[in-house]
Formats: sequence, C-alpha cells, structure tokens
Amino acid sequence: MTGAYATLELRFKRLGLVNEAVAMLNWDTAAMMPEGAASARADQLAELKVVAHEMLADPRLPDLLDDAARDRLDDWQRANLAEMRRLWLHATAVPGTLVAAYSKACSECEMAWRKARPANDYASVQPLLQRVLDLTREVAAAKADKLGTSPYEALLDQFEPGGRVAEIDRLFDHLADRLPALIEGALAAQAARAAPMRPAGPFPVEAQRVAARRLMTRLGFEFDHGRLDQSLHPFCGGTPDDVRITTRYDEADFARALMGVLHETGHALYERGLPAAWRHQPVGEARGMSIHESQSLLIEMQVCRSREFLEFAAPVLRDCFGGSGPAWTAENLYRLGTRVARSLVRVDADEVTYPAHVILRYRLERALIASELELADLPDAWAEGMELLLAVAPPDDRHGCLQDIHWYDGAWGYFPTYTLGAMTAAQLYDAAQRAEPAIPGAIARGDFAPLLTWLRANVHGLGSRFSAREILVRATGKPLDAAIFEAHLRVRYLAA
Amino acid sequence: MTGAYATLELRFKRLGLVNEAVAMLNWDTAAMMPEGAASARADQLAELKVVAHEMLADPRLPDLLDDAARDRLDDWQRANLAEMRRLWLHATAVPGTLVAAYSKACSECEMAWRKARPANDYASVQPLLQRVLDLTREVAAAKADKLGTSPYEALLDQFEPGGRVAEIDRLFDHLADRLPALIEGALAAQAARAAPMRPAGPFPVEAQRVAARRLMTRLGFEFDHGRLDQSLHPFCGGTPDDVRITTRYDEADFARALMGVLHETGHALYERGLPAAWRHQPVGEARGMSIHESQSLLIEMQVCRSREFLEFAAPVLRDCFGGSGPAWTAENLYRLGTRVARSLVRVDADEVTYPAHVILRYRLERALIASELELADLPDAWAEGMELLLAVAPPDDRHGCLQDIHWYDGAWGYFPTYTLGAMTAAQLYDAAQRAEPAIPGAIARGDFAPLLTWLRANVHGLGSRFSAREILVRATGKPLDAAIFEAHLRVRYLAA
Repeated sequence: MTGAYATLELRFKRLGLVNEAVAMLNWDTAAMMPEGAASARADQLAELKVVAHEMLADPRLPDLLDDAARDRLDDWQRANLAEMRRLWLHATAVPGTLVAAYSKACSECEMAWRKARPANDYASVQPLLQRVLDLTREVAAAKADKLGTSPYEALLDQFEPGGRVAEIDRLFDHLADRLPALIEGALAAQAARAAPMRPAGPFPVEAQRVAARRLMTRLGFEFDHGRLDQSLHPFCGGTPDDVRITTRYDEADFARALMGVLHETGHALYERGLPAAWRHQPVGEARGMSIHESQSLLIEMQVCRSREFLEFAAPVLRDCFGGSGPAWTAENLYRLGTRVARSLVRVDADEVTYPAHVILRYRLERALIASELELADLPDAWAEGMELLLAVAPPDDRHGCLQDIHWYDGAWGYFPTYTLGAMTAAQLYDAAQRAEPAIPGAIARGDFAPLLTWLRANVHGLGSRFSAREILVRATGKPLDAAIFEAHLRVRYLAA
Repeated sequence: MTGAYATLELRFKRLGLVNEAVAMLNWDTAAMMPEGAASARADQLAELKVVAHEMLADPRLPDLLDDAARDRLDDWQRANLAEMRRLWLHATAVPGTLVAAYSKACSECEMAWRKARPANDYASVQPLLQRVLDLTREVAAAKADKLGTSPYEALLDQFEPGGRVAEIDRLFDHLADRLPALIEGALAAQAARAAPMRPAGPFPVEAQRVAARRLMTRLGFEFDHGRLDQSLHPFCGGTPDDVRITTRYDEADFARALMGVLHETGHALYERGLPAAWRHQPVGEARGMSIHESQSLLIEMQVCRSREFLEFAAPVLRDCFGGSGPAWTAENLYRLGTRVARSLVRVDADEVTYPAHVILRYRLERALIASELELADLPDAWAEGMELLLAVAPPDDRHGCLQDIHWYDGAWGYFPTYTLGAMTAAQLYDAAQRAEPAIPGAIARGDFAPLLTWLRANVHGLGSRFSAREILVRATGKPLDAAIFEAHLRVRYLAA
C-alpha cells in the first residue's frame, strides 16, 4: 500500500512509540525514580512531548489528512484516519504560546495546591486557580472553534471523544433526582441488618501482594506482559504489551489495596486487550475515559463486590492471610465491600454516593467554564451542592473544593467520565450476563474466561474503531441508559 | 548569548534528553521489563534512536558547526563544540543503508550466538559473524575516512575518543612481555602461603543487599539520585541525576555480587560527578570507556581489594552476615579477594591474568579488521594466543572465541579499554595517594571523602573537557605508563 494514508500510518506509528516511551517514564517516575531525579525527569518528559508535538504539528499533515480521505480505505482504516484528524486538531487548535503559558500555569497552581490543601487555605491558591481557569477558557474556546462544539464539550472531548453535555445532563439529572432517596434507602436497609465484622489485622504487605497477584492472575492479568508495583497514588500505566499497575498497602486494612488492585486490573485488561493489529495507531488505542473507567468499575464494582466473586475469593483470602471465623465468610466480606456512608471525600466514597460527588463537580465546572460561577463563590456553591445531593456539609475547604487535584492541574472536563464509566459498567455487565448466562456461575468458581472473552469481543478488541456510544449500542442494544445503573444499585443496596 | 554556538547548545540539549530517555528504557529492559514486552520495547528504543539520529543528521548542522567555530567561545564551550563535531561525524559518516544493514546483521548474529555458545557450535554462527565483520570493515573504512584515522582507530574512537593503536601497542607489549613471569611469580607466592578460608554460607539475598547498600553509601553513592536493583548481567545505567546499578546475587558466595556492586559503584560515582553545569551537553558526558573503566576498577580493584578497605569492611560484613572466626578477618578476606588463577574465561579472571585475556582479543580483532586473520582460523589463533600469554589451552570454543558477546554484537574496538582502564586506575590511584597521603588511612576508617574529593576534582568534574590523555597528564604528571600498573601488581601479588 502506498499513498497518503500509508504515509500517515508510518508517522502515527512513530508518534505512538514516542508516547509509549513517555508512558514508561511516567510509570518509572511514580514507581521507581529516586526523589533527586525529579527535575531531570521533568526535562526528559518535556522533551519527548515536544518531539511528539512536532510530529503532530508538521505542516505537511493537513494535506496528508485531506489526501488520505480520498484513498481507498476499509472501515478500520477510515476510523483510524478520523482518530488521526482528531489528534491533529487537538494538537494544533491551540497556539504554542498558549500551550506553554497553560502548562506553566497548571504546574504552578498544582504546586500551590499541594500546600494549600493540607493547610485548608483556598484563598492562597485561588489567584493561581483563576489563571488556570482563564487559560482553560481560552483553550476551550480555541478547540471549540475547530471541533465545532461548545467550549465545555471541547474540553470533554480530550477525555471523552464525542461527549455531549445534553446527553450527560439527561443521564446525570435522572440519577441526581433519584440519588437522595436511593442513599436514604440503602442506609436504612443497612441499619436494619447486623453490622459486618472487620477481619483482624495486621495484614503483612507481602501477604497482600501474594493475594493481589493470585486474584489478578485469575482475572486474566498476564504477568509476562505487566507488573504490579507500589506508588503513592495507585494507577494503571505502561503500554498494552507491558501494563504496569501500582497500589499502596495499608497493613491495617487489606481491602483498600486489594480493591484498588482489582480496579486497576480492569483498566489493565482493557489495555492488554486492545487490538494488536492496530498497535501504535490511534484506532488501536482505548476509546476514551468513560469506556476505560467502565472496564475498571466493571471488574471492581460489578464483579469483585458481587456475592459470586466473594464465593470464590473468600477462601483465597483466608488462605493468604490465615483468616478464619465469621469475619471471613463470603457473606460478611460481601457486606463489608458494599457498605454505604455519606462522606465528604470523593475518593473514599462508596458505589452509591460516588455519583453525587461527580455530578456536583460536573455541574460546578460547567458553570465555571461558562463564567456563570466565579471562583470566589466556589466554596459556597460546593457546600450547597453537597447539601442538595448528599445531605452533608463540608466543615472546611480541605474536605470541599480543595480535595481533588483535577482543576488545579488543568484536568477540566474529566470528572463526568467517572460516573459515565460507572453507568457504562452496569450496562455492559448486564448485557454480558444476558448474552452469556454462565458468567456469574463461572466467576463463583474463579473462572473469568467467559467474562473476559465477552469483553474482548465487545469492548477491548474494538479499540477506537467505534465511538463510546456505538460500542454500547452494539454490545447492549442501546445507548447509555441511567436506569440500568439505577436498577443495579437498587438490587444490590435496597434488597434485603 | 545568541549565534550558531547557542543554537547548537539548544539542539544538543534536546539530543541529550532523548538519550537519557533511551538510557532509562535500557535500564528498565534489563531490570524491570516482563519478558513479553521485549518486542514492543525494541520498537520504542529503535524509534527514540531514529529521533536522536535525525537530530544529528539534520542538514543544517554542518553549517552551524562551522559558524560556531567563529563564535567567541571559552575553553569549555570550545571543547563542547569539538565533541559536538565528533558526535556528528560518527552519526553521519556511515550511509543510512549501511547503518540499517549493520544493525540487522548484529542482532541476527547476536541471537545466533546466544544459541551457539552453550552448544559450543562456532561453525553455526561463523557465517553470521562473517557478515558482521564484513560490515564492520565497511563502517570502519567510512569512519576512518572522515576521522582521518586508521580503520581500527575509527572503531576504537567510538568508545575511546582519540585512542591510537601505536600507543596501545606500546602499553600492551610492555605488559605482555612481563605477564607470564608476573603470573608465575604471583602463583608461586600464593602457593607458599596457607590457602585462605572461604566464609561459610548461605548468604541470604536480603543480607547481601543490605551489605551492598551500606558499603555503597559509605563510598558516596547517593540513593536519592540512584538505585540498586537486580539483572541478569550487572551494569551501571541511568543518568547522572539518576544512576541505576544492578547486580546478581549468589547465595553461596557473597563476594561475587558485592565486588560487582563496588565495581558498578565506581562507574556510578563517575556519572554522578560529571559537571552539572554541562548536563545534557556533549562536553558534560563521560570522557570515554578507558576513563570510565578506570573509575570502576579504581574503586573495585585499587581500593576495595586493598588491606585498608578490608580493615573497614570486614566488621561491616561480619555484622551483615553474622560472620565470626578466622574466615572473616580482614587479612583472610584480603587474601580471598586477591587470589590468582590461570583461567579460560575473561569475566572470571583476576586482576593479574585479566590483561592477558584483553591483549589477546585486542590483537585478534585488529588482525581480523585488517584482514590479516580470517574467521575460519580464529579458534586456532585463540588457542595459540592463550598458550603464549596465559599458558592455558581452551578445551573448546565455548571457553574460547565464543565466550564474549562483543564481536557477535558489533562492539569491535571495545576490548582494549578494559586494560587501558586498569592501567589508568593504577596510575590515578597512585597519584591520588601522593597528592593526598591521608587517603589510605581514611579508607581504613570507612571515610572515602578525601578520595572522592580528589576524583571529583581531577576526573569526574572534567567531563569531556579534556582528552583521556590530557586528564592523565593533568592528574598524574604524565601520559599512561604501563610500569605503574605493573608496579601495583608486583607490590600486591609478588610481595610476601
């Protein structure tokens, strides 16, 4: 094959490989790098990002993209070309001077936030956040112009290609209307039962690592194509052929690290299952953050907090930790893993209350980008929203608008993908079980092959061939439907 | 500052950062990467090397180099410019098609060698080695043409900038003439003493790691700018701000890993001590392999196999391994660390016999490059040389010309730097002790600061500001002198 499209494939392969090198260095930074190397590492990463940007900003690219559209292409190639254009648009929509100013503003603001949060000092970081917000609005306007979307959608598109606020509003409103009663009901059902028992620790790190590796292996994580390590903030990084997940161990509570590992394993299985024939091409990459998060939540929330999973996992955990007695039964562990509580902090939230945190942030960031809310009023707006959605009030900004890094670091438009992911997970798992009724029974026996096979065929192996919406329609028969997630919550948390 | 030189500094900084990314990925490949990621990693590394090569092969570079020579430059800048030109010459002297063919021939040959060595099957790899040799001759001719040197010197220049065969011949001949008698004498002196005792193992890996880290820290290795990990083949990698050394543990023998770690620590101290003001510039890099090897051998051989060092280290080792009794005295450990034996394998050789292995390989590779020796005759020539220099005969090629990866992997011109490094180490340590007579006494107390300070000022901090020869003349008053290394061997191995 020759022609413009073939030339583009060669160029994007180069870009893909540079991006993989960046991914590996990012992993190293978090998991291996000694502290004194931070500044040198920042320079290395910045240089590789410049190299990658130069590849996308090459002035010959627009012509190649146009010419390639006239090439004879199959469906995968055409989808690949569309993804190339999307990447090119994002890379070139914003002038270089704005990119540099934005990057600097974000790192200055993030550094200030790292001090402001523990000090509960929103005022000290507000001017820097204002600078980030101003520049974010500029970036959003520039990208919106090229993408033909609203400014907020242009930000969203960086994480959730093709995401639309009208649809998100509809989904989130559906949920927000029902959440207060759902939370109330879940708490009442929980109060009516005896409280579950906490297994007594300590749980040595090595035993936790062994347990994590055993469960990961059963789930399908391939240790000849990946690693499990430690880092301050757990994440899934690396590349599809070398997926690196990290966790953080707490010897007083094995569940925290373990559920984190299972969550990251969901991300890892997605990355590993991306179409090998399209490696290093845009169409071979993960579809976006709602689908990515759906894969981690499908494993963590839908599967690993289910009774079936614990039937299999409880004996494994008893074995790894030398546990015995009533605290270690599958039913008790199930009850522990599905506790509900109104909390102030998103990352500590359970499956039922988590969407309230996300919906609040989504509404606030949309208002901020639209200049309908000013930063001076953010703490009050936060408190009001928490009261409305969760019926709790933050005692201070540390437990309020200072808690998440996202806005301070420039990740505007990211928040909704968490709950879109949770909804997508519920809908996909529901469809998987309808298509393969043997899945829950197999899970109870520690056999994840039927589930993984379905996910490979219906999600992982599709890469970015289809939009998130199309993936859902193909796999489940309809676009995202908040009622399926709602039904899942009702069954799990309101039934006896 | 503006002008051509300033432009070159910016460009070479970019190159330096890409090369650092390559160094980190190389470390990861050896120390962390799961096996299944090998092919993807090879692609990532190949891409970064293409990016680096494109930076050097930019057609605007020759004019910039010429223009910069007319800029007002200080001595460091002028040395930097000379190094830039050297890198550019090496990168562009060979046509791209030859580079690609050579790279392919080397990896095919290396793969075949990995099977041929354990199978003792030189015949199976000989045709592939012939291809490597033919292409090496072509590369050597192309580079010699640009550098104005002999073909062998052009290869040598890749590892030992400015190295000249006339000087190496003189140094190696001096040593080769005396080695048979020296080895004979050392063995006789050794036989006249009671054999040293071997401390009884096993020595758990964790205890070995603790011992290694304690000694590394005392020597000056900064763990906030580096790591110690495990890999199949020990090496020192990473970057000056993040020096990563590896080792391999044998629970039956702690000395093997430990001496390897101390050797790599010598390399690491050099890298860490390179001039920070010239980070990412060619002049800020290590001078070449003979100086690099001199730093590892100065630490491992000159310092850590000395009586002074063991006076300090013996109690540390007893503490780490719970050792006691006559096998653990400083004197016994000294005798163990200075055992001499005629051996067939270079990497197992001691300080006295090692140069014989290197001189043999140097003479053979010169003859092969000059087409004075053909590959079919290599095994016989090898046996002859071993007989002459070491009075031993290899029973097979596995213990002969198949033992080292270098030629099969394309590293022609590398071997002499091992013994040039050993000689340089002896000469530098001799000068250091003359300049700072307190050094040996300090070492006996575990205080390495006087030595490190001298090395920082006289070697590490100079980067590539001077040639290897100039570094020696400045630090020791004369160019490399084989008699100093010879004297060191006589004192250590022939005295009672």
